[in-house]
Amino acid sequence: MSRMKSVLAAGTAVVITVVVAVSLLVSADNGEADLLASAQAVFKPLPETAETADYPLTPARVELGRALFFETRVSTDGKQSCAQCHQPMFYGTDSLAFSVGQKGALLPRNVPTVFNTALQFAQHYGGNRVDVEDQAVRAFPSRLAYGHDDLAGGEALLRLIPGYRPMFEKAFPGEQDPVTAQNWGLAIGAYERTLLTPAPFDDYLKGDTSAIGAKSKRGLEKFMDYGCSGCHSGVLLGGQMFQKFGITQNYWELTGSTEQALLKGRDKGRFHETKDEADAYMFKVQQLRNVAVTPPYFHDGSVETLPDAVRIMAKLQLGRDLSAEDISDIVAFLETLTGDVPANFANAPVLPIAPFMN
Amino acid sequence: MSRMKSVLAAGTAVVITVVVAVSLLVSADNGEADLLASAQAVFKPLPETAETADYPLTPARVELGRALFFETRVSTDGKQSCAQCHQPMFYGTDSLAFSVGQKGALLPRNVPTVFNTALQFAQHYGGNRVDVEDQAVRAFPSRLAYGHDDLAGGEALLRLIPGYRPMFEKAFPGEQDPVTAQNWGLAIGAYERTLLTPAPFDDYLKGDTSAIGAKSKRGLEKFMDYGCSGCHSGVLLGGQMFQKFGITQNYWELTGSTEQALLKGRDKGRFHETKDEADAYMFKVQQLRNVAVTPPYFHDGSVETLPDAVRIMAKLQLGRDLSAEDISDIVAFLETLTGDVPANFANAPVLPIAPFMN
Repeated sequence: MSRMKSVLAAGTAVVITVVVAVSLLVSADNGEADLLASAQAVFKPLPETAETADYPLTPARVELGRALFFETRVSTDGKQSCAQCHQPMFYGTDSLAFSVGQKGALLPRNVPTVFNTALQFAQHYGGNRVDVEDQAVRAFPSRLAYGHDDLAGGEALLRLIPGYRPMFEKAFPGEQDPVTAQNWGLAIGAYERTLLTPAPFDDYLKGDTSAIGAKSKRGLEKFMDYGCSGCHSGVLLGGQMFQKFGITQNYWELTGSTEQALLKGRDKGRFHETKDEADAYMFKVQQLRNVAVTPPYFHDGSVETLPDAVRIMAKLQLGRDLSAEDISDIVAFLETLTGDVPANFANAPVLPIAPFMN
Repeated sequence: MSRMKSVLAAGTAVVITVVVAVSLLVSADNGEADLLASAQAVFKPLPETAETADYPLTPARVELGRALFFETRVSTDGKQSCAQCHQPMFYGTDSLAFSVGQKGALLPRNVPTVFNTALQFAQHYGGNRVDVEDQAVRAFPSRLAYGHDDLAGGEALLRLIPGYRPMFEKAFPGEQDPVTAQNWGLAIGAYERTLLTPAPFDDYLKGDTSAIGAKSKRGLEKFMDYGCSGCHSGVLLGGQMFQKFGITQNYWELTGSTEQALLKGRDKGRFHETKDEADAYMFKVQQLRNVAVTPPYFHDGSVETLPDAVRIMAKLQLGRDLSAEDISDIVAFLETLTGDVPANFANAPVLPIAPFMN
């Protein structure tokens, strides 16, 4: 081979190498772009607030709602509040399978996080609360929670704390008698509409592909390919529909859920609201934001760890046996949904003083 | 009168006026200085921390203690913690006459604020806890509080939360097995030793006589003149001795305290610890820092408002009937003892995740 030929051959090899490398890069770029485009078609980043035309978020209303959220003295035992179950230390949950109400009574279902919950299509596992305002106001006449028989019971205690009157007047201007249970619910709802937790996945959805790692991206791809995102979609990756829990088999065969005396058997979800057998085992699809930091899992807190929850969901809902690697990747994706505890939630307000003589 | 004479007379009048005014000023200054000197002889400003040689405050230990202070999962019902009774919203109290423990049971005494309490000579109304570390560790085996029969019960739950091990190792370096109930108490004590609340009165004691108003100063003077400061002295204006509650008459005749089944009668204070009749009705003199924002008052929370508490104390302990103006002045003085809720207390920590399957 002449020197010229060998130089040419070497040149060709270099060209070929460069072309292959560029193709791979383009392909990787296309993969990144395709994955992002697929994700953007299915999921949406968090908005700034969950304010709506019906539920305006004035500073006075949010501030009042924050106080009331932490207020224990309006419960019959002087110890229950929204924050009692939705604790700052546990990302807006209480980290228990079942929460504990008055006199140590167990509540029938696991406490979901209060973060981002205002963006759901309905509240409670059975969807029997229209929105966060409705949820709050109907917690007052709950024997297990605030302990009152009716709204008037809660209102009466609220009025024993004089410092709240000016706060209600400011939050509900022009109302003759604003210290009401309805306004209590509106104020707490306003506050909850501010409790949103933007996460690395939001940055990713907005186009910053470096916001989540390669393993999380593999998990994201599998989450969509395997069908998880069929239900867990939208802004919250859930919270937008009801779905039967246990499509391929009874859920308790995998979750180990026990029967509950309170429900006369195993939890049948929305059926307990409608008494319609078509609703048996229908539950609101849970949002997945902050799922990595809010164990235990499912409506009865029957599963301890996120890898187990992912494995069980794939089997129960999709009939799919995930590999250990699949589970690990999907968990890495779900971890990108963890935001920060909002500062106006981690920080407890000082409440108007008033002695309660129990 | 010649023009000269009248000028001289006017000059004399001016001189006299100036002399009188200066005398009054000097007298007012002397009064200010005297009052400050009297106050400085009886009271002391808060130190920076309540650290001692025996109880060093390393950042790791304080941070661990802060987490454990808010930790609910180490109680048998998953809901009790130090912060459950010592709430950020209520200046380190729960704003109730009697706090509520497990299963709705009432605790026998009112919850005092946790702020500044580390500086007291002993803990609990009966003084049967040596210091805040002792108080914390002995809350574990309390049926009403954490619900355990012994320290091992609390330790076992603590060890179920893996995230605490590295925190204990950092807080107690060199220890083979640092996750113990004793170290739980030491860490919580370390945290509590940081919960000090400097107030306007501290600035006053340090020489800034503008830090408190004229009415508060009148109240301070009366507080000392009438003898309140005989017991309510020192750094905390209390917390340094035992004293009989009800010297001139039985306390319940004025407080309206009822008999308690738990105590088989009215609360006899330190007697319940020692069974010695000499200790009957002896209670630790309460500190007065933040007293204006921590109703209700006395060991059983039997009095709702601070003016009533002041009136009753003067009568019960000193046999003195205070006028409405006296009471109002003394309350104005006591209000200068209100500090800010410490930032590391208002702000709840995020705790290590671990599911609890109750």
